[in-house]
Formats: sequence, C-alpha cells, structure tokens
Amino acid sequence: MIARGNGKEQKLIAQKNAKQENFRTLDKSLRIQKIIDTATDLFRRKGYRSTSLDDVSRELGVTKAAIYHYVSSKEEILSIIYIQALQHIFRNTNEILNKDIPPNEKLRLLLSNHVKNIIIQPLSMMCVFFSEENQLPEKEFRKIQNEKNKYNRIVEEIIKEGISLGIFRKTDPKLQTFAILGMCNWVYKWYKPKHGSFTPDQIADHFVNLLETGYLKCNQQKTQFLLESEQQKKGKTVTKKEYYQRLRTQCIDMLNLIDKMEKSG
Amino acid sequence: MIARGNGKEQKLIAQKNAKQENFRTLDKSLRIQKIIDTATDLFRRKGYRSTSLDDVSRELGVTKAAIYHYVSSKEEILSIIYIQALQHIFRNTNEILNKDIPPNEKLRLLLSNHVKNIIIQPLSMMCVFFSEENQLPEKEFRKIQNEKNKYNRIVEEIIKEGISLGIFRKTDPKLQTFAILGMCNWVYKWYKPKHGSFTPDQIADHFVNLLETGYLKCNQQKTQFLLESEQQKKGKTVTKKEYYQRLRTQCIDMLNLIDKMEKSG
Repeated sequence: MIARGNGKEQKLIAQKNAKQENFRTLDKSLRIQKIIDTATDLFRRKGYRSTSLDDVSRELGVTKAAIYHYVSSKEEILSIIYIQALQHIFRNTNEILNKDIPPNEKLRLLLSNHVKNIIIQPLSMMCVFFSEENQLPEKEFRKIQNEKNKYNRIVEEIIKEGISLGIFRKTDPKLQTFAILGMCNWVYKWYKPKHGSFTPDQIADHFVNLLETGYLKCNQQKTQFLLESEQQKKGKTVTKKEYYQRLRTQCIDMLNLIDKMEKSG
Repeated sequence: MIARGNGKEQKLIAQKNAKQENFRTLDKSLRIQKIIDTATDLFRRKGYRSTSLDDVSRELGVTKAAIYHYVSSKEEILSIIYIQALQHIFRNTNEILNKDIPPNEKLRLLLSNHVKNIIIQPLSMMCVFFSEENQLPEKEFRKIQNEKNKYNRIVEEIIKEGISLGIFRKTDPKLQTFAILGMCNWVYKWYKPKHGSFTPDQIADHFVNLLETGYLKCNQQKTQFLLESEQQKKGKTVTKKEYYQRLRTQCIDMLNLIDKMEKSG
C-alpha cells in the first residue's frame, strides 16, 4: 500500500512539474491567456463562486503569487472573460452593419454570424458568459449589460427597419429580438463540438431558414392566415364556395399585379 | 454607536424569531415545500455549490437539525427541485398529445403550453433547473436527462409526423427541436414577471407565430424561394420577362387547382 501511495504521489508531483514547465515555457504575453482559459474551464465545471485562485494555481501547477503577477483578483479574471466573450460576439458585426443591403439580408448575415460566433468559441467561455453575470463587480456588470443591450438594439433596429419597409411581418420588435436571439444563444447548451453531426454552418443555415420562413409549409401558412382573418371577423360564417371564390379573386388580382409590374419595368 | 449596534442586533433577533414562527405555524406538509422554495432562491442567488444547508436554515430561522427532519441532504433538495420543475414542464402534455388533431395544431398547443409553463413558475426554479444539472447525484442526473430527452422526443415526433404529412417543411427534426425549444427555454433569462409589459399569453402567441411562419412577409418568402431555386440551377440566367411569365403560369396553375378542389368537394 505504501509503495502504491508513493507511486501515486510521485505521479502527481511529475504532473505538477510538467504543468509548471508548460506554463513557464509559454511566452509571457501568452501566460495571462493561459490563466484566463484555465479559470474559464474551472468556472464552468465548479461555478465561479466555488472556484478559488488556489484552484486556478493548482490547475496550472504554479503558485498563487505567480498568478497575482498577471491578474489582481478572481473578479478581474471574470471581467476579462466577459470582455473577451463580447469581443467574440461582436466579431464581424460592424462589417455586416456597414453593408449596403436590405434588412432581411442584413439580419440573415448577422444571425448566421451570431450562431457561428457562439459555436466556434471554446464552449466554456460561452457557458460562463451566459451564467455568471451576477458575479461581476457592480461597475463591470453595468458595462457588460450596456454592451449586451447594444447588441440587442442592433437586432431590434434591423427588425424595425424591415417592418417599416414591409419586408418583415408587423410585430413587436423587442419581443421578436428576445425570441430570435434566444434560439441562437441556446445553442451553447446542446452543441457538442466533438461528437456533433452538424457543422456550425449547417446549424446557422438551419436557424436562419426557420426564423425567416417558419416550420409550416407555405400552403399551410396561407390556410392559417385565411383562418385567422376569418376568426377575427367573428359571427360571419363563410361557406366553402365563398372560400374558393376568394382564392380565385386573389389569383386574378395577382395576374393583374404581374402585368402592372412588368409594364412599370 | 453601541445603542445603534444593539438596536440592529435586536432587529435581527426579532426577524429570526418571526421567520422561525412563520415556519412553525405552517402545516407539517407545507414545511418541506418551504424548505425547497427557500433553498431554490438561495441556489439561484448564490449558486448550488456555494450554498450550504446552514445558509438554508439561517434563511428559514430554524436549526439545521430541523431541516434534517424533512430532507436528508442538500443533494436531496436539488433532486426534489428538478422533479418538481419537470412536473411543471410536463404539465398538460398528455392531454395535448391525446387530442385528435393534426401535428401543426398539436405543436402549436405544446409550444404555447411550454412557454407558459416556464413563465408561470417561480423563475428561481427554472434558473436552477437550467443551470445546476451537473450538480445532481449521478443516478438523479441520468433520470433527469432521460426525462428531458423524453420531452425532446415528443417534439421531434410531432415534427416528423408533420413533415411526413407535408404540413411542415422538410428539415432535420432533431435540429429543429433544438432550435424551437431553445427559443422557448431562453424566456427564463429575460422575462421579468413584475415589470414585464408582456403577458405569458402574448409571449406564447408571439413565439408560436414566429416559429410557424417566420419573420419574413409571405411575398418576401416567395421571392426567397424563387431566388434560391434559381441559384441552385446555376449557370442558367433568367430574364425578367421569364420571371413574369413564370409567375403568370403559376397563377393559372393555381386557378386550375382551385377548380379541381371545388369539384372534388
């Protein structure tokens, strides 16, 4: 038993030395990122509040003093994680917003970018980003909230523009933003990068298609609209014959519209 | 200063006595729920791992021994929270599944029910439910995973049925389930019951409408489909005149179809 115990101990010491060596061989500029990445993994596994700087230093195989050389506190590490995560989330947004394209194309690009930005990151970072916000120091909390709100407003403004141009359905833009971003954000909960059978592109395309056109087939949607508009005019019963007649009228209206469009160039 | 200190101390003692009294006046059958609710709030605020049974007993103003009278451990409390949350999530699902209605109506009811089940619960419960899963004891973790998978499969099966009946667009049902439930689940992240300007019904309706028909207006969707199908037939350029002609042909096809439908009853 003693021999096994010693063997295990020696193995642990060897592991610690290897980790320490690993950290020391890194360029100084990369060491802070190594601390952040290690802390991020621990925060995700154990939760921010249950992780101490001792845990981080143990995981890195260095002393706590060595860590203090790069960051002043656990709070600072968390703030850095949030800043980096936001940088990832905002990546490419300016380029997309500056494009001279209609709001539907803009939203398509932005959402696709958003989903991929979440998936392509180390998922630990997004797990921490979406769950430890309340642990941030007051000032940082407000800063991060502002940035998140800024992102939401970008989406909301595109939706408003699309509605005013008659490209998007008329609906509450705030609620629409929550709904759309909710679907995209939730991806960090179920996406498994290693065993996943879907690529980031496939997921992004799937989401955007669903959000643009819904899960109902187009003919079903039309029936749905007709039924709803009928339900609104309560009390008035419509016969099947009337429905067919209406459909015919709509087709003829459409034919007239096509003629007009062609003539106007 | 001493007087103020004493005053504060007396106030704390009075609060503790009031809490204790509060707990004791409860019917025995309600006391366990009081423990669960108090723990749920603490888990949400401080995280599960950072909350001890001492914290729970302090919050309730009772001894830890009094708590052990009702639950054996912190793990048991967490397991009970998960079981109760799942009961809420599954509420009404059997009634909906047993209805003799087409898959689109079934999915509409199920999703609306899902959103409302999340919102109507104390949000603390859903916060814990969606974030502390990894803290469950191994056996309970697997049980909860099974139940969650069961719920996902219910949605997936309805989607498969809808696709096979030609009511839903053809798409990957698994990915579709993740996307749809993601939007619905995320509601616990932003919904504020007290200051919210949206009712649970409004949110549920909004989500289901968006998921069924998408954010693009119907005419935009048609343009999108045409463009996509054209892009697929790469190399072949289509003139504007040809587009107009195609639209006309489609209208005439539709008119013929309406005639046929009317004749067949």
